[in-house]
Formats: sequence, C-alpha cells, structure tokens
Amino acid sequence: MTQRPHTPLLDTVNVPADMKRLSQEQLRQLADELRTEMIDVVSTTGGHLGAGLGVIELTVALHYVFDTPDDRLIWDVGHQAYPHKILTGRRDRIRSLRQGGGLSGFTKRAESEYDPFGAAHSSTSISAAIGFAVANKLKDQPGKAIAVIGDGSMSAGMAYEAMNNAAQAGNRLVVILNDNDMSIAPPVGALSAYLSRLLSSRKFLELREAIKGIAKKALPPPLSRAAARAEEYARGMAQGGGTLFEELGFYYVGPIDGHNLEHLLPVLENVRDAAEGPMLIHVVTQKGKGYAPAEAAPDKYHGVQKFDVISGAQHKSTPKAPAYQNVFGDALIAEGKRDPRIVAITAAMPSGTGVDRFNKAFPDRTFDVGIAEQHAVTFAAGLAAQGMRPFCAIYSTFLQRAYDQVVHDVAIQNLPVRFAIDRAGLVGADGCTHAGAFDVAYLATLPNMVVMAASDENELANMVHTMALHDDGPIAVRYPRGEGTGVAIQAVPTRLPIGKGHIVREGKTVAILSLGTRLQEAEKAADELETKGLSTTIADMRFAKPLDQELIRRLAATHEVLVTIEEGAAGGFGAHVLTWLSDEGLTDAGLKVRTLRLPDIFQDHDNPAKQYAEAGLDAPAIVATVLEALRHNSVGFVGGQRA
Amino acid sequence: MTQRPHTPLLDTVNVPADMKRLSQEQLRQLADELRTEMIDVVSTTGGHLGAGLGVIELTVALHYVFDTPDDRLIWDVGHQAYPHKILTGRRDRIRSLRQGGGLSGFTKRAESEYDPFGAAHSSTSISAAIGFAVANKLKDQPGKAIAVIGDGSMSAGMAYEAMNNAAQAGNRLVVILNDNDMSIAPPVGALSAYLSRLLSSRKFLELREAIKGIAKKALPPPLSRAAARAEEYARGMAQGGGTLFEELGFYYVGPIDGHNLEHLLPVLENVRDAAEGPMLIHVVTQKGKGYAPAEAAPDKYHGVQKFDVISGAQHKSTPKAPAYQNVFGDALIAEGKRDPRIVAITAAMPSGTGVDRFNKAFPDRTFDVGIAEQHAVTFAAGLAAQGMRPFCAIYSTFLQRAYDQVVHDVAIQNLPVRFAIDRAGLVGADGCTHAGAFDVAYLATLPNMVVMAASDENELANMVHTMALHDDGPIAVRYPRGEGTGVAIQAVPTRLPIGKGHIVREGKTVAILSLGTRLQEAEKAADELETKGLSTTIADMRFAKPLDQELIRRLAATHEVLVTIEEGAAGGFGAHVLTWLSDEGLTDAGLKVRTLRLPDIFQDHDNPAKQYAEAGLDAPAIVATVLEALRHNSVGFVGGQRA
Repeated sequence: MTQRPHTPLLDTVNVPADMKRLSQEQLRQLADELRTEMIDVVSTTGGHLGAGLGVIELTVALHYVFDTPDDRLIWDVGHQAYPHKILTGRRDRIRSLRQGGGLSGFTKRAESEYDPFGAAHSSTSISAAIGFAVANKLKDQPGKAIAVIGDGSMSAGMAYEAMNNAAQAGNRLVVILNDNDMSIAPPVGALSAYLSRLLSSRKFLELREAIKGIAKKALPPPLSRAAARAEEYARGMAQGGGTLFEELGFYYVGPIDGHNLEHLLPVLENVRDAAEGPMLIHVVTQKGKGYAPAEAAPDKYHGVQKFDVISGAQHKSTPKAPAYQNVFGDALIAEGKRDPRIVAITAAMPSGTGVDRFNKAFPDRTFDVGIAEQHAVTFAAGLAAQGMRPFCAIYSTFLQRAYDQVVHDVAIQNLPVRFAIDRAGLVGADGCTHAGAFDVAYLATLPNMVVMAASDENELANMVHTMALHDDGPIAVRYPRGEGTGVAIQAVPTRLPIGKGHIVREGKTVAILSLGTRLQEAEKAADELETKGLSTTIADMRFAKPLDQELIRRLAATHEVLVTIEEGAAGGFGAHVLTWLSDEGLTDAGLKVRTLRLPDIFQDHDNPAKQYAEAGLDAPAIVATVLEALRHNSVGFVGGQRA
Repeated sequence: MTQRPHTPLLDTVNVPADMKRLSQEQLRQLADELRTEMIDVVSTTGGHLGAGLGVIELTVALHYVFDTPDDRLIWDVGHQAYPHKILTGRRDRIRSLRQGGGLSGFTKRAESEYDPFGAAHSSTSISAAIGFAVANKLKDQPGKAIAVIGDGSMSAGMAYEAMNNAAQAGNRLVVILNDNDMSIAPPVGALSAYLSRLLSSRKFLELREAIKGIAKKALPPPLSRAAARAEEYARGMAQGGGTLFEELGFYYVGPIDGHNLEHLLPVLENVRDAAEGPMLIHVVTQKGKGYAPAEAAPDKYHGVQKFDVISGAQHKSTPKAPAYQNVFGDALIAEGKRDPRIVAITAAMPSGTGVDRFNKAFPDRTFDVGIAEQHAVTFAAGLAAQGMRPFCAIYSTFLQRAYDQVVHDVAIQNLPVRFAIDRAGLVGADGCTHAGAFDVAYLATLPNMVVMAASDENELANMVHTMALHDDGPIAVRYPRGEGTGVAIQAVPTRLPIGKGHIVREGKTVAILSLGTRLQEAEKAADELETKGLSTTIADMRFAKPLDQELIRRLAATHEVLVTIEEGAAGGFGAHVLTWLSDEGLTDAGLKVRTLRLPDIFQDHDNPAKQYAEAGLDAPAIVATVLEALRHNSVGFVGGQRA
C-alpha cells in the first residue's frame, strides 16, 4: 500500500466555520498554505499581490476569532481580500479573478455574504463599519463590525471624519490599522511620519502586555458618564496625552506583529470580548510577506501581470504605443521647462498619472498629497490664486472625491487650475468602481469650466500644451487608461483653439460627432457606412464645453443624421449637444439626432473592448444606430401641421 | 466755542495700513468701535452676527500684526468676515451686505484684494493657505498665509487632509484655530470632545509663557533634518505625546484668550517672526461676544434677521406657509413611527434640514455627524446594508462634498439610502456658493438612482412617504429653501408611483414639462398663453429619473411645442428628456423642444425672485420661449429631403 497523500488543510476549509475546529498550530499551517495558494493564483491571473500577502495571518486570525459573516468584516479598498475570498467559499472561482464573468478584484456584496460592504476606492471602511455597528445597536442584536484599513487610506479625510464619529459605535466597532508603510518609500504626510515615530519609539507589545492592556481597559463595568470622562482625562491628559487615536476616543492597542498568529489571536480574542470601545488595533505587516521577490520590491509587486512563481518574472506584454499617462507626463515636462509657474499635483498616484516623470524633472514643483483629493484640488486653487499654474492629475473616478472643491474653490472663483483626468471611460479589470463614466456630466454642467477629451495621444499632447497656455480659468482634459493608438506625437505641440472641433473626414449624409477615443470606432463605422453608400462626416469635437456651435450648426444644416459618441454616461457631451441644438431650434426642422453613450448600468469588469461592445459604443453599434435613424419613419410637423 | 466732537478711530481706518500708527490702547478702542459698528450694520442688514462678534479682536490683531494683503489672510467659511470687510476698504458698502448688487456675506476674491480666497463652504482655508504659502516659497518671495478656522470646520475631512500636508508650507503657514465650541451645545464628535478636554486641563497661557513657548520653538537656527527629527521625538514621544496638532507636525501654541489684545498681539508677533513652522494658534473666543442677547443665545444670533439693537428683538416676518425643511421633518416623523428601521442623518444642519424635529421624536435614531458629508453618506450606506432605512438630509450644495460616496458606496451597491436634498435651486442672499444648481445633473447620470423634485410642500410630504416605502435602491428628493406655497398637506400621504408624472392642466398646443417648484410659474405662463389663444398642457413630471416615458411620448405626439423647466443647471432634467426623445426618434419628426434651466453663469446673491428672473425661469420667460418656438421657421427633413 502506498502512503495516503497528505491532505492540505486548505482543502478542508470552505468557509470560516470550517476553521473553528483547527488548533493554533494548524492555523499556522493553514496560513502557509493560503500564502502558497495566493501566490499561485495571482501568478496565473495577475492582480494585486503584495497587499494580500501582507494580510494572510490577519485574514486567518480574523475569521478564526470573529463570527463571520454575522460579525461584519470590511476590508478597506478590498484589493487585499484575495485570501479572504479563498477562505469564504470562493476558492473554486478564485482563478477567474478580474476576468469577464469572474470574481471581482475587490470585495463585492453581490459575490458573497462574507463581503458585507463592497469597496475599491479607499478609506470608506470605518464609516461603513460604524453604520453596521450602529444598526446592530439599534436593532439590539449582537455582531461586531471590523474595519481593516491601511495606513495610506488613513490619510483621506473621510477616514478622519469616521474616526471623529466612532464613539457612536461603542465596542461594536473594531478598527484594524494595517500599517505596512515601512516598506514603501517615500511615505507621504504627517500621519505617516507620526506612525513611523510611534513605531520607532515603541517595541512590539509583548503578548502579556497586549492582553493585559486590553483586559485593563475592558474590565471596568459600564461607567457613568462623569466617571468615564474622568477616566478619559486620566488616560489622555494627566499622562501627558495618549496616541492620536486615543485622543480621538479609541482604545489603542499596539503595535502588534501582524504575521505572528500567537500574538494576533489572543489580542483579537480580547478585543472581541472587550466591554469598552471603540478599539483600534495597530498591526504592523509587510507587503508581499513570504514571497521573496515581492518582499524585495513591494512597489513592483503591488499590482502584477501574470508571473513566473520561481523567478518572479512578470509576463509584461510589449506595448505597441506609449501609455496616455506617460504622454501626459512627458508633455507636462515640456511645458514645465517653458513656464516656471507650472506645478504638478497628484493624490497618491504618481506613476499611474505620469506625474512621477514630471517629478524627476522638477522635484520641487511636484506634490504628492497622499490619498487626499479634496486637499489636492483646493491646494491647487490656492496655488493658482497666488500666480502658479497647477496641473491636478487625478483619475476620473477619484476626482469625484473632490467634486465640491472643483465647484466651490476652482470653478466659482474661475481659477486657472488644470485637471488631467486619466482613466476616463471604461477601465477593464478594475470594473465599475474605477470606471471614469461621469466626469463629463459632472464637469460640463459647471460655469467657467472647459472640458476636453483627447482622441489619441498626439491630441493629448496638444491639449496639455493648450491647457498650459489657458490662463482664463479652469480647464480639464480626459483620456483613457492604457496605450495610445500609435500615432506620431508632434515634436512641437499645437495650441488648439478653445471650443473648436475639427473635421476628420468629410461626407454628406451622416455626421458623427465624436468626443474622445471612440474616434477610431467612428472611423471604422464610417468605412462600413460608405460600403452601404452612406457618405459620412466625422468630426473630432475635442470640447464637451464650450461646444463648437459653428461646426455643429453647419453639420446640422447639411446632414440628415447626427450621431454623438462619447465614453461617458448620460447627461454629458451628447446631452449638451442636444440642449444647444434645441436652444437654437435646430431640431425643429426634423433633424435626426442620436446620442451614443455609456448605458444606464454599472458595467462589470471585463476587457475594455468587450465592455465597449456591451455598452453599444463600438463600430457595429454606431452603424446600427445610423441605419435605425435613417429607417425611422418621420412624421414631421411642418408649419404647425403634421406633414 | 463748543468742544470739537470726538472723532471715532474707526473713521480714520480705511485699510489696515491705517492701523499701523495706532497704539495698543487705541487698538482696544478701535475694536470696541468695530464691534458697535458691526452690531449696528447687521441690525439693519441681517446676516451672520455671532461669528463676526467673536472675532473682533482677532480681526484687529491680525491686520495689525501681519502685512495684509501681501500676507494672505483666509477666513474659513467667511461668514465671520464682516469686521474684516469693514477694516479693508469696504465700510462704505457694508450696509449693502447680502443684498442684490451689494457685498457678499462671505469673502470673495472679486470684492477686494484683502480677500485672497473666497469661501462659504467650510474647511477649505488650510488647503488654500498651503497653496499660497507654497507658491510664495516656489517664487522665493516673502508672505505668510494665515488660515482662520473654527473648531466646527475642523471636523471636516478636508481640514485633516490639509493638516496632514501642512509641513510643505513650513513657517509660511499659520493656522488660527478659533475655538468657540464651548458656547454651543451639544458639541459633535471626538475632536470637539478632545478640544474640551484640552481646554479644561489647561489654563490660558500667561503672556510670558506664551511668548516664551514660541520663542523657544522659533529661536533655534534651521536644524538639519536629522536634528529636527530628534527634536520632534523629544517633543512628541519622550514627553509622552503632545497635542493632536503637534502629532500632525504643527507647533501648537495655546490656548489664548481671543478677546485679550494684550495677549493676542505679542503672540501673533512672535508667530509672525518664527523661523519654524507650521504654527497652530489655539484661540478661544465667544460667539456673539460683547452683545448681551447674542452672548446669551449664540444659536439664535448665529444668523439673524434685522433686529432692534437695544432689545435684541429680531424682525421675523410671519410665514405664510410652512418651510419645506419643517414639512420634511414632520413627514419623516410620521414615517419613523410606522417603520422602526428609519433613521435620520444630518451633517451639522439639524435645524436647517428639519432633522431637529425628528430628533425630538427619535433621539436614538438621529445622527448629527458634524461637518462630515462624506462620512454621513457612507455611514448611511453601512446602516442600509445592515437593514436600516437611512434618510440623509443634506443641502444640495453640500452633497457635492459626498459625491463619490453617493456613487461608490450607495449607487453602485444599489443600497436603499434616501437623500433629502434641501436648498435645491437658487437660494437668495447666500449667493452662488450655496446655490443648489447641479444636483440633478450629478445624480441623474448615475445608474440605480431615483431623482425626484417636489413642486410644493404637499408633494414633498408624499415624496417622503414614497421614499420611505422604496426599498429597491437609492432615491433622492430635492426641494427649495424657504416657505412652501401654502397648499394643504394631506392627512394621509399618497405613495407616488416611481417614474410617473401627472397632468396638472390639459391643453393642446404647448406642453410644459415642469420639474420642481417652477410649476407655479408654469401655471402663470399658461394663463398668459391662454389669453393669446394658445392651449397649454402642464405636467408636473415629479421624476428626473426615471423619466415618465409614456407621458412624454404622449405629450410629444399631441403637442407642437414641448418646454421643460427646472431649477438646475444644464445637463439635468431637460437634457435627459431630450436624450430620451432622440433615442426614440421622437424629435425626428420636427417636434419643437426647448429646455429652460439655470444659465451658464454663477449668479450673484439677490432675492430669489430676481435671481429666477435673471435666470430666465419665470412666467414671462416661459411665455417668451413658447412664442419664439412657435414663430421659429421650421425647415424640416421629410423622408430624407428638405420639406
């Protein structure tokens, strides 16, 4: 007889309840198996590697100690939740991560009852957890809410707003501060510096201290309000001030080694059973823990392509054209050389926005403010008001965080802040939470704003130049994630006239008014329409605001069908074209207009081409729309009578 | 000879430079005169009283010590800046405050070089000041930036984001924390509690200590980075932690009595000359200081009508109809009685939103989170995800602060959060910073959202009932500031069908599709049109999303002209109507459509009726639009040929 093969513990754990019978030693083995599985999975799917590896032990410990899903475990951002997904009934689908029809790369309510609150943008977890905790309190039902939030996410204002309101949740709220900043350089902001000081001045708590610390805090029976206040004074003031978190009303425990299950488990058990709260547990982890290539280069293994597990080599495909973000960065450097007033601002996305390139050329004129979009925009407004010319490079979806600042501090004051809006339109594997669907709608409605969209990378370079010379007020350009089209980029950029589009192809019957990179699909559609004998004009409109009224008027007067197309939701470019046409009475005469735009759904992750096909924004959809419009049986009013 | 009359010092100060020759004793007299003037002014104009009275001495001291306008003084919110306006060349216009063509009730760049950064929304001042300071640093030019921010404004996330990034500004940045919370009950949040602890545990600094403290911090020559860090450790850690502000990298000085010029002046002089920074000066003031009625009831004298100076009696006009906010509050109480899952959330606007009424009925189910709109919305999402049914009552303009949370946490997850959006449309004396112009545009573009507008207070009550029964996803209602129309409110509310409008008046030629409270103007316009023989239909559309497609189709088929009207900017209701009409080919046949909306400018403060006339949204404008459309010479395509 051959020996029975060893059964991995991971195979015996489908849901967290299956872990409860394991011993502490077995949990260590489970964690090791989970780490191996995680590395193997991501080597085949690509995705976020380092963050998940950093929380392997934390994931195991949290599910072991707490009673999920009744206790609500909320992962901030959610890109570190792959191990969590493996342990919560999704191991069988984990290799479909980030692929069409597969698991999301973030937490998602629709996927599992173990994902009580979806995420992808950062810093929402504490607010949500307070909501869960307060709901349980109001319903007088048991259940904790546990937010796991990274130190980087703590730099966002909304995390602070939540901490400021945490008292309402009482001991139902547990915040795990997952501090892995030590491994990323350079850290941004005062909080990061504060955490570093805290760590360097304190050793990891010994197990006994950690438990004793909590026990001491947790033991007193519910105190009267006055007594509680007295105790707060004693904690916070007489001892000369506690940690920043204690000053905000948390019981602070830490720092704890986040890879040491022997410490994590008893501390979490004590926190679980604490009578007082809210609790903040400061856990120190290492990004990429347990996978040597990722430990050595946490930045390169934060988000990865498929890779070879042994060597760590990532299978990066050779780009056919430069990425838009790099075209932006390089174009900005050229402008920065010309105009010393130009500065660049990013909110924790230096490489994603190409601002890292500008930073190499002009380190004193580059500002990474951390995850703090609100501050980024108003800081830019202040710079502009004092004579500088800031470029604020923020993804479309994250600029939503600073909408009020765009309105109140920039647009109302008509300040020359330039917005470089990357990741406009659909973004592929990151799905609907990262789609840049709404920026044209939310910006073009604002007085004083100029809103452009680049149709290729050379256009983007020209638009950056145009923005750099536009001193009259705010101006924005949007462009997609990923590679350009491969066109040559002019050695010397052209300044584009504000509010002017241009004709790409001249025809007679159909006019396609394109905003942004759907232009390539418009050209394919026009080719197809020509084969059907339909002469097609294409205009690259360039501006969603101000509209090129002269051009639209001419196209409306000389074509039978006008089709607008944009990579954005309803209420954007097409809506503004329709609004102006009706203001002018240009549709009174029976002009056929159709607006192609993103559908009224949040589209799931998939590759962008499939997403745009689903959205009805590819060449076949354009052709179908034109043919439908031409077929449409007009019954027009002429002179007030049905014709 | 009669004695020459005493010349008030205030008459000799037109701009701050005029103060420089005054002695410290004279400054005390100047402050007293300024206070008397301020009370007299606001007694005739109405406006914000308590906040300005609280900063009389601070205003005098700041302009005396700093070199404004070259040193940039930025008042957070700006509603406390009336004394500042009086001292900075605007005394001759101060009695035009908040009136059409007059001075703004907030700081405003267009008004004066002494207003380097306009405001009205809270918590922007530190970010802006960092921008000014960094610009000066980059330009290698002198000049400090001084942000004056209240403790309430410190609860907003963007203030924290700014503090987290303050180090970049170095000693060019001075933050004055104007702490007057002691006089308002109840304070909200942990920061407020922290400040109270700080105050109760420390006496006001004696003058010598205050100056010595700064001198000690400021005196050392620029330290090397390593030495600076060592000093930080010594300050922050070895001594057991400093204040929360020190932990965020500020030099903290305080608390200082903000009404004592003998203390304020030397402290500010030392801060001005400090080599290290950034500095945070904790100044304690009293709202309404020096005016007995306002000291006694700071809440009632925060914003006032005209009043009698001697008695303090405010000239409140008798309302003809209940305010929308109170109708909302009362309607919500009724729903709260029926459904225990209903809770109310407000962000520092309990009485302005009517949530104070709900709070009286259901104190355990009411949450005022402070100035923290981002947290408010995600907290609501968390509550909804755990089975509660939160109503989030936030003004239209402030909901802009939580736009990403509405998208990412509520709409994408399709959670039943109900948004009660007060102050929709134009708001009168508070001007463009407070106008609720964009909410339909920024909400109706979102999948899953339902967006309603109430045409009168009974409709609002019905819509609150409708929201309370809508468990399918997010839903919002918008309604204006101020009094209702005086209609009777149903004893038992009606649940409205989602996405259905209703016909208010049936006609034949013209159809007015009204969203919101322009309905009354639409009716006046229809009366006028009838006198011209133009039979007019009016539909109260109720829903900007989903649109009542059936009704629009019927009206389009049976009328010659369709006019939409809304109290919102382009890209909103009218744009969505046009978009759907063109999707369906309903304009192909030469239907005349016009969309009336807010103009593409930020409108200055004035009374709302004048603002709406300027906007072209009153009855005469509707009539003119209809007549223009009917006159418009249609030249239609029929069957692909010009008719």
